[in-house]
Formats: sequence, C-alpha cells, structure tokens
Amino acid sequence: MQILKERIKKDGRIIGDDILKVDSFLNHQIDPALMDSIGAEFYRLFSDVKVDRVLTIEASGIAAAVMTAKYFGCPLVFAKKSRTVNQSASVYSSKAFSFTHKTENNVIVSREFIRPGENVLIIDDFLANGCALRALKDIVLQAGANPVGAGIIIEKAFQPGGEDLRAEGLRIESLARIKSMSEKEGIEFL
Amino acid sequence: MQILKERIKKDGRIIGDDILKVDSFLNHQIDPALMDSIGAEFYRLFSDVKVDRVLTIEASGIAAAVMTAKYFGCPLVFAKKSRTVNQSASVYSSKAFSFTHKTENNVIVSREFIRPGENVLIIDDFLANGCALRALKDIVLQAGANPVGAGIIIEKAFQPGGEDLRAEGLRIESLARIKSMSEKEGIEFL
Repeated sequence: MQILKERIKKDGRIIGDDILKVDSFLNHQIDPALMDSIGAEFYRLFSDVKVDRVLTIEASGIAAAVMTAKYFGCPLVFAKKSRTVNQSASVYSSKAFSFTHKTENNVIVSREFIRPGENVLIIDDFLANGCALRALKDIVLQAGANPVGAGIIIEKAFQPGGEDLRAEGLRIESLARIKSMSEKEGIEFL
Repeated sequence: MQILKERIKKDGRIIGDDILKVDSFLNHQIDPALMDSIGAEFYRLFSDVKVDRVLTIEASGIAAAVMTAKYFGCPLVFAKKSRTVNQSASVYSSKAFSFTHKTENNVIVSREFIRPGENVLIIDDFLANGCALRALKDIVLQAGANPVGAGIIIEKAFQPGGEDLRAEGLRIESLARIKSMSEKEGIEFL
C-alpha cells in the first residue's frame, strides 16, 4: 500500500536495528483518514472471503480494525490483555509474550463473541515475532471458528512471525513488509 | 441520541444497581456502524467549535473517537494507561482511579501530540465518577491547550462526575444520560 509506505518513510522513526516508532500516525496519535484507507484496502484484499467477524487486540489495533469491520458490515471484537489469569468458563484465553514490554499477557475474548463455524478475520497493527497473532488465531480455533486470514498493517519481514504463521497455513496480507531497517540505512520494503 | 438509547435498552445488561454491561456493542464487541453514527453526532454537537485534535483513552474509547476525528478531519490521540509512573520529560501524565478495576492508573500522553493553544475535544465511552475525564482534562491543561468539550457516549447521571466537571466549567455533551437503573426496574434516561 503505497501511501502507507510513504508515510512510514516520512514519519516513522527507526531506533537501533529493530524498533520502528510510528506513534505519530498509528499507535499513539492516529490519522483517521489513513485508517479509513487501510480498512478499505483490507476489504479489497479479503473480498474473496465471507467475513463474519473482525478480531483484533487492544489497543492500537482497534482504529484500523473498526474501519475494516465497517467495510465488511460486520462486528469487531477486540481481545483484552490481562496480567492475571482469567480462568472463567465464559472466556477463551491464550498467552502472548510482548517483546516490546518484556511481559507475558493473557489474551482474553468472551465466548459470546466468537461462534463455532464463523469466519474470523484478524487485524493487527504489527507483525514481528507473531506472538499476538498466534494467540488470536489460537482463540479463533478454540471457538471452533475459522481464521480466514490476518490483515497486518506493518510486517517486520526480517523477524520470523510472518514466515512461521504462513507455514502453518494462515493467510496473511501485510500492507507494508519491511525487509530491513537501520538508523543509518533507513527502511527497505519487500 | 435515540438509536443509542434503544440499543442500550435492547442489549445492555444491568448488574446490581450501578453496573451496565454494554460489551456486545461498545466495549468488547463493537458495532462499527453505530460508532460511525456516534462520530457524526459528536461532530454535529460540537460543530460550533474549531477542533484541532481529538483525545481519548485506551481502549474502549478508541473506536468512537477515531470516527469522530474522521468527521472533524483532525488527528486522534489516545492516552495510555500505565501502572508504573513514567516521569519522562517527554510525556504529560495524570492519575485516574478506576472504580471498575479498583486500581490507580497513570494516564500518559506524549508531549509531541498536544500543542499549546490547540483546541482539544475529549471523547470517552463512559462518564460516572469522572476520574478518567478529569485526568484527560488535566493533561490538556498541562499542555497549555484548551479542553473545548467532552463527548461522552453513556453518562451515569446518578453518579457525580458529570455534575462536578460541568460545575468546573467543562462543556459535556452526553449521547445517553442515565437517570437511574436497576435489575428490577430497568433503565430510565434523563
């Protein structure tokens, strides 16, 4: 997605060799018009599948996911992160290690909001090691639903998450795939 | 806002005398079309003010706030909650006690994303005791910006937050104001 790649080049800040800060338009301050375009693009990319529900994880996936769900005309569910284990029979839960925050979160979705047999499209802002995406896919499978694909805004293709999850059979469409980046050399997209 | 009140009556669940669960359309599962209508309604209600930025707090305020910011054609900033104090010179922070979770959070916004003299519209899903809204207003004032108003989706008017903050001079527009509610009697709107 060209306008996204240009925006990343213009406003993204690289720290070291693997941190990309995009908090001026994606995950602290948000550009609503860009989110709307991203929603439209995910709708176009997954127009060949029936999507019953969009699933994301709080907090920075929500803005793009609500736009995506608006285009599909279906509900959005956002998974919650919790440091404490919720063993309630009313939720699905999975674990995700956050490399950014060096903590393990429990990822939780109420059983009411994913039904067996449904087609679920997962949306998230970043894919790097794949921990959050794997937890969301796991929750969809626990519900007996179908993870029909994952729409990712920025994929760090030099980290293993995307390759691993594609090898496991998950369809992933990433709007910007970063091949390499460094403070010195800048960003190279795939 | 009539369609919102009807939706609350239809899908909201009252627990005891003061908990209203609206997680089937507002704060766990989200209805994107309703969020779009809510954004349009806040735009209409605040059409008399110039809005430079919309401010909300993660996570359940984001969906309605991104739609609101889309109508105003301005950026959205979402404040982050943290259990740990961030004393960095690069952020504004304030404290908010969560009655829902019985914890005190630090509410944090990067200084980059609110500028002195700007007009900031605050959006949030619930107003009850007013702790989160007061923290957001405090951050806007710390930045030397103007809190031109607060758009609230559901106000529990039987709790003191709305009255207190209006008495302090904050303009608040709430789309559904609950006068009273109980499991037995249901909901009465103002």
